[in-house]
Amino acid sequence: MRIDLNADLAEGFGHYDMGEDESLMTVISSANVACGFHAGDYRTIPKAIKQAKRAKVAIGAHPGYFDLFGFGRREMNLAPEEIYDLLIYQLGAIKAFCDVEDVPLSHVKPHGALYNQAAKEEQVAKAIVQAVKDVDHNLVLFGLANSLLVEVGHQLDLNVASEVFADRTYTKEGFLTPRKDAKAVITDYEEIERQVFNFVFHGYVETITGERVFIEADTLCFHGDGKSVFRHANRIRTKLEQEGVQVKAITS
Amino acid sequence: MRIDLNADLAEGFGHYDMGEDESLMTVISSANVACGFHAGDYRTIPKAIKQAKRAKVAIGAHPGYFDLFGFGRREMNLAPEEIYDLLIYQLGAIKAFCDVEDVPLSHVKPHGALYNQAAKEEQVAKAIVQAVKDVDHNLVLFGLANSLLVEVGHQLDLNVASEVFADRTYTKEGFLTPRKDAKAVITDYEEIERQVFNFVFHGYVETITGERVFIEADTLCFHGDGKSVFRHANRIRTKLEQEGVQVKAITS
Amino acid sequence: MRIDLNADLAEGFGHYDMGEDESLMTVISSANVACGFHAGDYRTIPKAIKQAKRAKVAIGAHPGYFDLFGFGRREMNLAPEEIYDLLIYQLGAIKAFCDVEDVPLSHVKPHGALYNQAAKEEQVAKAIVQAVKDVDHNLVLFGLANSLLVEVGHQLDLNVASEVFADRTYTKEGFLTPRKDAKAVITDYEEIERQVFNFVFHGYVETITGERVFIEADTLCFHGDGKSVFRHANRIRTKLEQEGVQVKAITS
Amino acid sequence: MRIDLNADLAEGFGHYDMGEDESLMTVISSANVACGFHAGDYRTIPKAIKQAKRAKVAIGAHPGYFDLFGFGRREMNLAPEEIYDLLIYQLGAIKAFCDVEDVPLSHVKPHGALYNQAAKEEQVAKAIVQAVKDVDHNLVLFGLANSLLVEVGHQLDLNVASEVFADRTYTKEGFLTPRKDAKAVITDYEEIERQVFNFVFHGYVETITGERVFIEADTLCFHGDGKSVFRHANRIRTKLEQEGVQVKAITS
Repeated sequence: MRIDLNADLAEGFGHYDMGEDESLMTVISSANVACGFHAGDYRTIPKAIKQAKRAKVAIGAHPGYFDLFGFGRREMNLAPEEIYDLLIYQLGAIKAFCDVEDVPLSHVKPHGALYNQAAKEEQVAKAIVQAVKDVDHNLVLFGLANSLLVEVGHQLDLNVASEVFADRTYTKEGFLTPRKDAKAVITDYEEIERQVFNFVFHGYVETITGERVFIEADTLCFHGDGKSVFRHANRIRTKLEQEGVQVKAITS
Repeated sequence: MRIDLNADLAEGFGHYDMGEDESLMTVISSANVACGFHAGDYRTIPKAIKQAKRAKVAIGAHPGYFDLFGFGRREMNLAPEEIYDLLIYQLGAIKAFCDVEDVPLSHVKPHGALYNQAAKEEQVAKAIVQAVKDVDHNLVLFGLANSLLVEVGHQLDLNVASEVFADRTYTKEGFLTPRKDAKAVITDYEEIERQVFNFVFHGYVETITGERVFIEADTLCFHGDGKSVFRHANRIRTKLEQEGVQVKAITS
Repeated sequence: MRIDLNADLAEGFGHYDMGEDESLMTVISSANVACGFHAGDYRTIPKAIKQAKRAKVAIGAHPGYFDLFGFGRREMNLAPEEIYDLLIYQLGAIKAFCDVEDVPLSHVKPHGALYNQAAKEEQVAKAIVQAVKDVDHNLVLFGLANSLLVEVGHQLDLNVASEVFADRTYTKEGFLTPRKDAKAVITDYEEIERQVFNFVFHGYVETITGERVFIEADTLCFHGDGKSVFRHANRIRTKLEQEGVQVKAITS
Repeated sequence: MRIDLNADLAEGFGHYDMGEDESLMTVISSANVACGFHAGDYRTIPKAIKQAKRAKVAIGAHPGYFDLFGFGRREMNLAPEEIYDLLIYQLGAIKAFCDVEDVPLSHVKPHGALYNQAAKEEQVAKAIVQAVKDVDHNLVLFGLANSLLVEVGHQLDLNVASEVFADRTYTKEGFLTPRKDAKAVITDYEEIERQVFNFVFHGYVETITGERVFIEADTLCFHGDGKSVFRHANRIRTKLEQEGVQVKAITS
């Protein structure tokens, strides 16, 4: 048994810090690096890439809407060509830092509202998939398990990884509970552990309304901006490894 | 006889336009594309790159300080590592758009205060040269003729092009008259023509205090944000070609 | 007969100019000054207020979403409290400049997507009306003629002015044709003149589908960012005055 | 004996938090509220003002340069008129929130590089003093003790409060040690307590080079963005009160 653990990192901006990047790097196998649009900047990116390099963690781009104030969590209606350009810009910026550090850019995980809209809106999904392919067809695209983004990725012959969340609740449709809902984020460690174990050993998550949604996923996300995320992820990883699960990045 | 004509383009932002990019592309041989920091955004960049591709104009990056409000014209005291990162981010973004359009990125010309500080401050010049080399050692770096940036570029074995300005006045030290000076920008066509002809056929520019400064330069800049710049550049190009001067991009 | 002519002004940002503020001031009777969120900044605002003062034009605030890149034209789902705060901030900033120039702030006209959402969404309309009242209950609120904003303003005892547009087309519901529609903006002078005369002398506008929508309005808007807007507005004003119409700001 | 304790608050932005505003409000007597330029936004401001109102803490504006990325700590060369406009905009925004909450705006403390430049550059100091007076001549201006800002404030008949810092070191000229110096900020509680007690009971601070600089000051600043600042400030306040010092806001 094997799973990839990922987290969203480098989400500070200027004098604002966010998350516990350095310690999280020791626990995860894939780092999703914010690209400077919803968060992150030209300083946080190389810092995170160097940390990931030292920690031998796979590096991915974490592009989002051009919306620092809203942290990329506000839905937008952009034309597919605009989404394509949005991706190219951000992937190019990250890739250049990977190149000068001589580490590969391994994957791409859209952020926030872009991620959620890509899970449901075909035009958004297609624009993202095309942009990722055009930048490097060996990149692995991370998308919500069972979502349209994963489906479109498969159709267009892109390497896709299905993602499940350790600390987010699910609706019975298998989508993430929207963040405006008070129950969207799980903060209690016991609950997080239960969700991870349900998924890893039994292949399902329990929804907020009590159903089981069966999920095949390759990568498990811990939110880098959550409180105590390092402590939680570290405990989970230790327990998973004790149960014989191998934590390892996805390779295309 | 041969000269490259360049202009700074793609300097709009969101709903703001700047310059006459489309028509200018028909007159210049090298387009310096703003990268989204002092101006430009993820929409203006691909638009300009497609225009340049159609017009068979060489494409360059035009990186600046992260200062939209000041249009990159305010001097900053950044550590060399920060300038390096500033360049990597912007060059990466532009390069990705060139890659998906299957056109080469040919050159890099720093913008505004970054350009001026690089002409005088060794740490700034070195950081820029290193970043350009690390992204692609075949890129040509445009710097002010006779400046420290050109010198440092030569020392570090980078291809360098010396630049002279059609519509900016010079001090007797051979620097550009600072923009806060009312005489910094030449708007009169006759004066622009005289400056260009003095340089192309006699190798000098006349300073605001009346001296002649001798300049060897490879590329001649028209300011894309100036009024009437297309009309002026078009007339100049026609006259230069009538005199047997070949207008052609620099190749590394 | 009497009408107020208004235009949206001060919509530049940093080195970006927009519109023909100085000349427009000579033609309009009410200036809607952008407040620094969708456009405008701490330099454009006092400049416009001084111009309006010299031209004896009534000064209004033109607040919008905090969205420079989208020029405030992208719809957002903000809680009413957030819209209230959005208004207070921007009205306060403008009011301070009016105070130091010793001119009254006369009116408030929401911008772009905020204006359109206020025309249809009760929560948005109420939040705006409350904010305007709390800042100064003598302010006149400009809203789309026949819209919910105007209705809510009346209900909550705020002075309201109904607005009609010289250079925007209408749907048969009496709303503005959305800007993504190619027919949204009227650029032909003859058509603009026809629309203004239909409204001023006959009380209706003709919709894009040919119907007549009857409108009672107090103020007529010319778009400050349009091409030729000064020329058009100037001709219209002259013609209106020749027909005996008095152009005059609204007083509360 | 009596002293005002102040802190800089509301310095988050969008999804970024900074500091421990809510708890700090229980310890200080004056809150300096960031105005949305170097930090803060239209949501953090009313939140802080409501907290200050509940805690019965005097409210001040904390305006800075328009430089979110640099957190207002980068020096700029702005014309006096630009600094004047910079202040008017920010003071107006804050004042409007105070007005709708029906609490007075009591004081103004410039932030970061603006504060430091105002301490030394006469044009900057004058522009700030004039703007504060024009907005409300009863406002108290906080400036570095012994600085030019305080002097200019006195000359122009503005109420001025001299400020000393609990957790910043001093040069022998009586200026703050620049932040790029590793010793600029005091993080050790014992040292902070010593500095406060030296100042409150003996009227001096000890400089980084060991001299004593004598200071008359009315208000003592704790940095809201420092780690443990609430804990430190709380202990200091308790000790000061045990020694009979009254903690109280300045009134004009």
